[in-house]
Amino acid sequence: MSLTVVGSIAFDSVRTPFGERERMLGGSAVHFSLAASFFTEVGVVGPVGDDFGEREIAVLRDRGIATDDIEHVLGGETFFWRGHYEHDMNVAHTDDTQLNVFADFVPKLSEGSRTSEMLFLGNIQPELQRGVRAQSSGSFAALDSMNLWIETARDSLTAAIAEVDCVLLNDAELRMLTERPNLTQAAKATMELGPEVVVAKRGEYGAILFTPDSVFAIPGLPLETVFDPTGAGDSFAGGFLGYLDGVRSDGAHDEQALRRAMAYGSVMASFNVEDFGTERVARLTEAEIAERLSEFKRLTHFEETA
Amino acid sequence: MSLTVVGSIAFDSVRTPFGERERMLGGSAVHFSLAASFFTEVGVVGPVGDDFGEREIAVLRDRGIATDDIEHVLGGETFFWRGHYEHDMNVAHTDDTQLNVFADFVPKLSEGSRTSEMLFLGNIQPELQRGVRAQSSGSFAALDSMNLWIETARDSLTAAIAEVDCVLLNDAELRMLTERPNLTQAAKATMELGPEVVVAKRGEYGAILFTPDSVFAIPGLPLETVFDPTGAGDSFAGGFLGYLDGVRSDGAHDEQALRRAMAYGSVMASFNVEDFGTERVARLTEAEIAERLSEFKRLTHFEETA
Repeated sequence: MSLTVVGSIAFDSVRTPFGERERMLGGSAVHFSLAASFFTEVGVVGPVGDDFGEREIAVLRDRGIATDDIEHVLGGETFFWRGHYEHDMNVAHTDDTQLNVFADFVPKLSEGSRTSEMLFLGNIQPELQRGVRAQSSGSFAALDSMNLWIETARDSLTAAIAEVDCVLLNDAELRMLTERPNLTQAAKATMELGPEVVVAKRGEYGAILFTPDSVFAIPGLPLETVFDPTGAGDSFAGGFLGYLDGVRSDGAHDEQALRRAMAYGSVMASFNVEDFGTERVARLTEAEIAERLSEFKRLTHFEETA
Repeated sequence: MSLTVVGSIAFDSVRTPFGERERMLGGSAVHFSLAASFFTEVGVVGPVGDDFGEREIAVLRDRGIATDDIEHVLGGETFFWRGHYEHDMNVAHTDDTQLNVFADFVPKLSEGSRTSEMLFLGNIQPELQRGVRAQSSGSFAALDSMNLWIETARDSLTAAIAEVDCVLLNDAELRMLTERPNLTQAAKATMELGPEVVVAKRGEYGAILFTPDSVFAIPGLPLETVFDPTGAGDSFAGGFLGYLDGVRSDGAHDEQALRRAMAYGSVMASFNVEDFGTERVARLTEAEIAERLSEFKRLTHFEETA
């Protein structure tokens, strides 16, 4: 078992109704790999600049994450994002984006990353995702994307989707991608592009899993305090794919494993939002994960008969 | 077991992306009672005008619903609502509201309605809800309301809520009522007003049940075609309270019964939206209800361990 993730490694400055933080460790590959590291062996591919130091690397290494494919661009600066949230924490408002070393990033996978059994293509330019998929011999690949690429690179994104087994997108993005206002129809139309597994992420409302044979929906855990939702979708993906890779190495997943993976994804997303940046997930324990999985079971369980 | 509902009896003219209908039978008390009629004995209290005829009464009587407390106002016209939905079927756009006989409505409960074990106060003026609650000797009462009353009659609504055991509101309404942007905090603040059971309805995203001891969330059933969402919230309430009244007559409900009631509410709401007005629920069978309850179980079930 092994899982490679390609995506952004970033510094995030975030303001929410509960406080603010400057230049926290962030980015899709970081949130994803931290969450996945509780379930399987993970390696990160992505570029950083001179401002990315031992302290940041240590957060990943402390969780056993392989950092050999983190490319240090000499003289460069790390990707930077500044954003804020109002009371509706489902909506991120972007105040500044500095691509920096990400602007000229061309992912190169080492031998170890190439032969990973599972691959996650974080939200980057679809042609880059395709380039990574072409380098990988992994038997199961998944991708995330965003409205920007649907609007500006639809053909590339469609081609990238055709080359993966699983798509994870927000429900609004699935609707936009397929131009179907109905989510079930949008998921089916996405499957027609290639992938057998489609996950619609719905923020605080949870997520839905569509496969050719069934549908599984899990609500979000109602939390009293949500400090910072940044990275929750990537933590979901990390828990989801990390669990799948941890229990199976051949990329063929049974229905119950996929459902449990959805629950673990929800568990990791629910922890992600409890503190700023990576702070909550970085200090998480396996016992806390098991306890929260039970909490999701209690949240959703009912008996059909008395 | 017996359940009395007070609320609107209406003619609805509705346009959705899938078609339009003029002057269909509708209203909160109608949708509620039809859904509840599959689980318990229901009686309707509400006013109608000269335009309300045998055909409309027959829809209720065919489901065994007691119509003795439907008050015929001579020379009056029945409450009328005209609205439409765009592609986002979660949002109803009101084009016309004619209160008609509802403008001067003062609910009077007959002996039979007064002694019903359970009472549902549909979305009407909070002082009217309080008047009905005062007439009832029922051991369990629930109410629905809307943003209009939160804005224009907050004190009356707060007093009405203090006099019931259960509140069913949209999540946005719960947030508005309590001025808490966080739903869990909003539910707790609502319980502090009196009720032990708070249900947050979330449209296509499902519903959450809050009690002093636990939280239960159920997603909406992803449907390929939603024809007309009008009345879905009342059908949910009808399935929820109808089931509770059908299994228990003392108003004290155990956790598993409440969870199953949430599932039956979701079942009835999912049928409600499959056709215009009351058409789908009016022709529903018990076998279809049982099959859909199983569908909700399959939709939400996962095993914690392999």
